Amino acid sequence: MKVAIIGAGLVGSLAALNFARMGNEVHLYEYREDIRTAELVQGRSINLALSQRGRKALAAVGLEQQVLATAIPMQGRMLHDVRGRTSVVLYDPCTKQCLYSVGRKQLNEVLLNACEKLPNISCHFNHKLTSADIREGVMQFKRAEEHITASADLIVGCDGAFSKVRQHMVKAAGFNYSQQYIEHGYVELCIPAKSGEFQMPPNYLHIWPRDTFMMIALPNQDKSFTVTLFMPFKNFAAIKTPEQLLEFFNKFYADAVPLIGEERLVQDFFKLKPQYLLSVKCQPYHFSDKALILGDAAHAMVPYYGQGMNAGMEDVTLLTSLLNKPLKLQEVLEQFSEMRWQDAHTICDLALYNYVEMRDLTKRWSFRCRKWLDTLLFRLFPIFWVPLYNSVSFTSMPYSKCIANRNWQDRFLKRSFAGALLAGLAAYLGALYFRGLHAS
Amino acid sequence: MKVAIIGAGLVGSLAALNFARMGNEVHLYEYREDIRTAELVQGRSINLALSQRGRKALAAVGLEQQVLATAIPMQGRMLHDVRGRTSVVLYDPCTKQCLYSVGRKQLNEVLLNACEKLPNISCHFNHKLTSADIREGVMQFKRAEEHITASADLIVGCDGAFSKVRQHMVKAAGFNYSQQYIEHGYVELCIPAKSGEFQMPPNYLHIWPRDTFMMIALPNQDKSFTVTLFMPFKNFAAIKTPEQLLEFFNKFYADAVPLIGEERLVQDFFKLKPQYLLSVKCQPYHFSDKALILGDAAHAMVPYYGQGMNAGMEDVTLLTSLLNKPLKLQEVLEQFSEMRWQDAHTICDLALYNYVEMRDLTKRWSFRCRKWLDTLLFRLFPIFWVPLYNSVSFTSMPYSKCIANRNWQDRFLKRSFAGALLAGLAAYLGALYFRGLHAS
Repeated sequence: MKVAIIGAGLVGSLAALNFARMGNEVHLYEYREDIRTAELVQGRSINLALSQRGRKALAAVGLEQQVLATAIPMQGRMLHDVRGRTSVVLYDPCTKQCLYSVGRKQLNEVLLNACEKLPNISCHFNHKLTSADIREGVMQFKRAEEHITASADLIVGCDGAFSKVRQHMVKAAGFNYSQQYIEHGYVELCIPAKSGEFQMPPNYLHIWPRDTFMMIALPNQDKSFTVTLFMPFKNFAAIKTPEQLLEFFNKFYADAVPLIGEERLVQDFFKLKPQYLLSVKCQPYHFSDKALILGDAAHAMVPYYGQGMNAGMEDVTLLTSLLNKPLKLQEVLEQFSEMRWQDAHTICDLALYNYVEMRDLTKRWSFRCRKWLDTLLFRLFPIFWVPLYNSVSFTSMPYSKCIANRNWQDRFLKRSFAGALLAGLAAYLGALYFRGLHAS
Repeated sequence: MKVAIIGAGLVGSLAALNFARMGNEVHLYEYREDIRTAELVQGRSINLALSQRGRKALAAVGLEQQVLATAIPMQGRMLHDVRGRTSVVLYDPCTKQCLYSVGRKQLNEVLLNACEKLPNISCHFNHKLTSADIREGVMQFKRAEEHITASADLIVGCDGAFSKVRQHMVKAAGFNYSQQYIEHGYVELCIPAKSGEFQMPPNYLHIWPRDTFMMIALPNQDKSFTVTLFMPFKNFAAIKTPEQLLEFFNKFYADAVPLIGEERLVQDFFKLKPQYLLSVKCQPYHFSDKALILGDAAHAMVPYYGQGMNAGMEDVTLLTSLLNKPLKLQEVLEQFSEMRWQDAHTICDLALYNYVEMRDLTKRWSFRCRKWLDTLLFRLFPIFWVPLYNSVSFTSMPYSKCIANRNWQDRFLKRSFAGALLAGLAAYLGALYFRGLHAS
């Protein structure tokens, strides 16, 4: 089968590897130049949190260890309060599992290098998809001034949140679709290395939660941190001058100002407009046996659960397992859509929710109390009581099962709490009664 | 200002009239031929229920009476049970307001004739929009084999549920969008006139509710009824032969079979595939001061509340009122989006809900009981207690206020019911107590 994969990013190149290993003729089209020789693109998140689902997908193509070798483990969140005091919340105090900060460029390089080793993958960079007839499997590309026509039995759109392949599928009857922007945007800043060393402890995801906005930082291999400030657009709009910016930072992120450096802060903050964040939901993900979308093209999400890349890579794991079954391609794609959409919708919603948790709840007593209870129960019953964050990040449990699990846990705790109250009341009444008996 | 309106349907031609009356240069583009000289298009609903919001919009351009003169009033629902017995539920037993069954073609004709009387409206039929640069206000059309370029200060998309103008707006950052298909489709059938007369009482919307599916019929001016069968796609797929169709109809719609005629039933049922039904939600409805969408392009809905056309016409009423204020165009469009999206989302959701009501609830005791209570309270307190259906169909109350109203009524009734129960219990206990006193 001739498979055209649109987009040679993380999910596209991983999908290419999997299709090729099953003996298909794979053509991998990318509208940018080869990322291995390209300058970094400002505005796209340059480091990502790799967790279990991504690791599993990389392991299946024999690349997990190579990627982990250069990744930076993050064992928990380090919270920075307004006075600069820090505290740590471990992701997994029981079994010490970590997230791994990986560079987008490095990871993409590893995947593309693996693609190039397979004779049945052809990479076509600088090919911009201009239109497609998904019914007929015909695509039009533009390379510089040249127009190129290509065809394939299956077109796989791994072309990101603004997917061109999806644009053609949205027109088909019965294709459910939504795109939802949040009212918060982001800008990327940088805490550079100092004297060749990290300026903060590297093995954490640093968070500055500030209720309605927040800042985070992930470590890079070059000992710098990529810092991302998330805030409502109206707050961004209110900061017009370097003075206003420094006033704002000195008020809310005072400890970060000397690490970033005032000059660099001003320069980076005003370099680009704040970027938009959106959730994309689709159902189904395929069109007949002719087209399919994976990753952000199918389910772009806000970045707050660190699951965007992991969910995209898990798409490939599921698809590959179905392709290895004795099914017709149409059945594979149907089953893929059917098995995947609820999980994808769930993680999109969880990612939105986690923004509230990260910027606000982590500071609250009730949240910390629940977290402590979760950890205790996880320690006591590691099979039965896996907290939500852990099931999402450190297992391959379907996302919708993770949330069903959490709902069950919530009900259990509520009932236990009510049960404990009732038991206490019964004991009290019992005591009164017996005292009464005794007195009479 | 030069305004290009894409789509010369009901909303497009009404919008053209309003823009022209304010002195703008209006170009009305339509990809079909002139509906006044065209054959009817199979599969598009050919009659529609006009209610208060549509009437108000027509009145504003002096066309209400002309339209009502040929419309057929429907004073309520006539329900047909499986045994062919009928019962009537009036829409408005208090003030006797009606819905009006109007022909799409006749109504469109009235509007287009009015457009042609205004010197500053140019109609361009057979012009298919192929692409648009909404930032620059430039449009490409195709007429037969000819390519035509046109420009405008403002592009107004009134081009229906699959709007081409919207396709360009969806690509803009910050544009929230969803399209949701339901799992039910529809086919259109016909109960012809017999000896020049209606075969059923004409002044009702006829409904055959059958739990998971239903059939409806609206009267036409030529004394026929347009019949629409709504059903899950899987049920349609199960009917493969004329014998299966007749068996199905004789089981569920026995009274309609002789009215439609077996031969015609078979012919019409198998002529076209069942059509899809979808909800569209957007927010905002404009792009800068360059483009705007109205009607189905902005908020297509399933047809179960009879509000699709009425909501589209109400868009024009709101837009016109804003254009008449001393505001910049950008401000007008911003305010239009801001004031309209919640109401549009609400009526989309209500339309979905009403499918459940029409096919299932109308038969239930609890629904009829609530309806009776609603009517009683409406009679007693016509200002304070307007039932949901009446506020939607017979007032211009914003849709979101209609639903807030209903929620308040639900809470009130629940509390009253709980209050009545408590009062009853108190009375009973009181009686017991006094009997006890008396006995002692």
